[in-house]
Amino acid sequence: MLKATGVVVEYNPFHNGHYYHLQETKKVTDADCVIAVMSGNFLQRGEPALLSKWSRSKMALLGGADLVIELPYAFATSHAPRFAFGSIFLLQAVGAQSFCFGSESGDIGIFNETYDALSNQNEAYQAHVRDFMNQGLSYPSATSKAYELLETPHLLDLSRPNNILGFEYIRSSRELGSKLKPLTIKRKNADYHDMMLGKGDIASATAIREAVFSEDLSKAESYMPSYTYNILAQKQQENGTLLNWERFYPLLRYQLLSSSPSDLNSYYEVEEGLEYRMIDAMKKSNSFYSFMTLLKTKRYTWTRLQRACLHVLNKIRKDDMFGILENPPAYIRVLGMTETGKQYLGTVKKSLDLPLVTTVSKYDFAGLKMEAKTSLVYAQGFGKNRQEAEKEEFNTPPVMVK
Amino acid sequence: MLKATGVVVEYNPFHNGHYYHLQETKKVTDADCVIAVMSGNFLQRGEPALLSKWSRSKMALLGGADLVIELPYAFATSHAPRFAFGSIFLLQAVGAQSFCFGSESGDIGIFNETYDALSNQNEAYQAHVRDFMNQGLSYPSATSKAYELLETPHLLDLSRPNNILGFEYIRSSRELGSKLKPLTIKRKNADYHDMMLGKGDIASATAIREAVFSEDLSKAESYMPSYTYNILAQKQQENGTLLNWERFYPLLRYQLLSSSPSDLNSYYEVEEGLEYRMIDAMKKSNSFYSFMTLLKTKRYTWTRLQRACLHVLNKIRKDDMFGILENPPAYIRVLGMTETGKQYLGTVKKSLDLPLVTTVSKYDFAGLKMEAKTSLVYAQGFGKNRQEAEKEEFNTPPVMVK
Repeated sequence: MLKATGVVVEYNPFHNGHYYHLQETKKVTDADCVIAVMSGNFLQRGEPALLSKWSRSKMALLGGADLVIELPYAFATSHAPRFAFGSIFLLQAVGAQSFCFGSESGDIGIFNETYDALSNQNEAYQAHVRDFMNQGLSYPSATSKAYELLETPHLLDLSRPNNILGFEYIRSSRELGSKLKPLTIKRKNADYHDMMLGKGDIASATAIREAVFSEDLSKAESYMPSYTYNILAQKQQENGTLLNWERFYPLLRYQLLSSSPSDLNSYYEVEEGLEYRMIDAMKKSNSFYSFMTLLKTKRYTWTRLQRACLHVLNKIRKDDMFGILENPPAYIRVLGMTETGKQYLGTVKKSLDLPLVTTVSKYDFAGLKMEAKTSLVYAQGFGKNRQEAEKEEFNTPPVMVK
Repeated sequence: MLKATGVVVEYNPFHNGHYYHLQETKKVTDADCVIAVMSGNFLQRGEPALLSKWSRSKMALLGGADLVIELPYAFATSHAPRFAFGSIFLLQAVGAQSFCFGSESGDIGIFNETYDALSNQNEAYQAHVRDFMNQGLSYPSATSKAYELLETPHLLDLSRPNNILGFEYIRSSRELGSKLKPLTIKRKNADYHDMMLGKGDIASATAIREAVFSEDLSKAESYMPSYTYNILAQKQQENGTLLNWERFYPLLRYQLLSSSPSDLNSYYEVEEGLEYRMIDAMKKSNSFYSFMTLLKTKRYTWTRLQRACLHVLNKIRKDDMFGILENPPAYIRVLGMTETGKQYLGTVKKSLDLPLVTTVSKYDFAGLKMEAKTSLVYAQGFGKNRQEAEKEEFNTPPVMVK
């Protein structure tokens, strides 16, 4: 029986820090097979991926993963608790024995203790969260401030996105009663959201994206394996571009300015009159960035607003989303595998509770329909070469890397 | 009392043929004031105008019109009968004593006799139209073939768009019991839809648009007055482009590929499963032209299909349209005037039955809301300079030319 461990990733794009994480994960778990649960074309920060799920799967497999499983759109673009729940649920469903994430401390004890402390004081904690939100704070600010008020040693800084995610992985795993063994690896350099490329060969994906769009691709070359860089460069040339929100700005603008406020309010995460602010900000803007700057308030994080914009762009209504998000993922979609990954699937296939999807068109899950719908929109970002991108979603078999 | 006559125009763009029509109209009617009822940003062939209603109003006033009245979107983008009805109704409402259109024959008697003949054999005519449509013909083909079957001298070729329009002006006028005196002027050269620039200084607007987009603006210079050409050239430079359907193709593509078939079916003129054909054609196309070529069938004219696309682009639902189209226009909107036009309005103002709108924001008509909504979409075609175009719809006072 092959030993399998899991990681939760976006790889936007895959870089040296990710490579290090995969290698260390293999070491500490002694796993034969690394399973990556990866977001598809749209990401947790409410952004389109630089390049398609297929290209990013290939990066993952070349970089050390053996199997890439898709985190469905609904979970991939959800807040940390639901993002983590979908990911951990899928790792459990596909038969991993452990999961491993990066953190500042590299100490899994801190995460477990924090979970215990919060569980024991859950009522007080929730009351504090409500209070802070009533004062107009965003949900992440309210939760981290509520945590600070609890009578417990404050081992984790819960205002930091990577700590929040790690904590939510632990919580999901514990609440699912999962047998997955949680592990964490100390990160090398680079903070999650660092904006600048640093010295050495590790930079955050955020810094790499910044460099790619504000300068040129070659600035990012030394921060990623050569096979990653080659895929990026090849796709940029083929499609004429890598994707970011600015590429979708004309479509979002059209959608916002041609819809009625009540239409907009039917989309997921558009609440509390946000539809009026969106229309107003769009009328005054001339780029996605200027639009977001006008839209931003203390009440919502930048990320939360970007997610609302994604759902407007993709025309994802509240009802559509609730139907999927309120249940665990209903299938396991394979985006790519190595020979080892294939062998692993062969051994576990019969014991899996969820269907293993390699050909999308054979199934009728609401989650897969949402994937198809949002992939059609994603492909619009490529302009002339979008036809290739459209075909990709429906007809591409899983990426194979030896 | 000033003598006023009316013309129905689109001026996309204004050219020497239009100039000739205005001058002849003044001669034959001996009018002091020429009132042009003009389409706004979207036209009867289901196309966006090359440049905004404001620029085209200026062309009209420089070219000899004294007053420009807007034909509301619902009528301007409707089939010939409703287009003509809205136009003639407005000319009557604003107090014109006659109207004058261009035709091959220049003989108004032919139009009147054709109307009489059709009225007398209306039942037989309608039965033939139904038969031909059941055989899969388009409405214009069916009506012209039905007309051929009637026992009457066939004075008019009702398969030609300009004859159809002339006939519909007469019909609307007669059915409204209007006191407007109908007049027609023989056209000089150039057929309505000629595709090629010809010899001499007269070319069709279609040929001029072809030249503008496939070659360059200067090719069209000799076919239009210098003031028209200067406005075209200035606007092209200011906005970086003149508008046509290709500029809106990415937005239409996004709208079609992100909407469900049932959503699309709620838009005006999307019927009989056209929504499925539209989605399918869009998936296979890479330009508006290739999309239309795939969409075209014998059942629908190119124009009819372009109109359906316009309503999808502008998100105009069947209910919205019926509410406006089933009644005559409810207001008279002034887009521009000369001193003479102003003087004319001053004398008739008190006797008008409909409100005279010069500031849109003061009124709450459904037709004006539709105008604002579609103008926001029209402005998207300009890209970066759209903010100027957006302001124009709401804040521009009528264009004044001395």
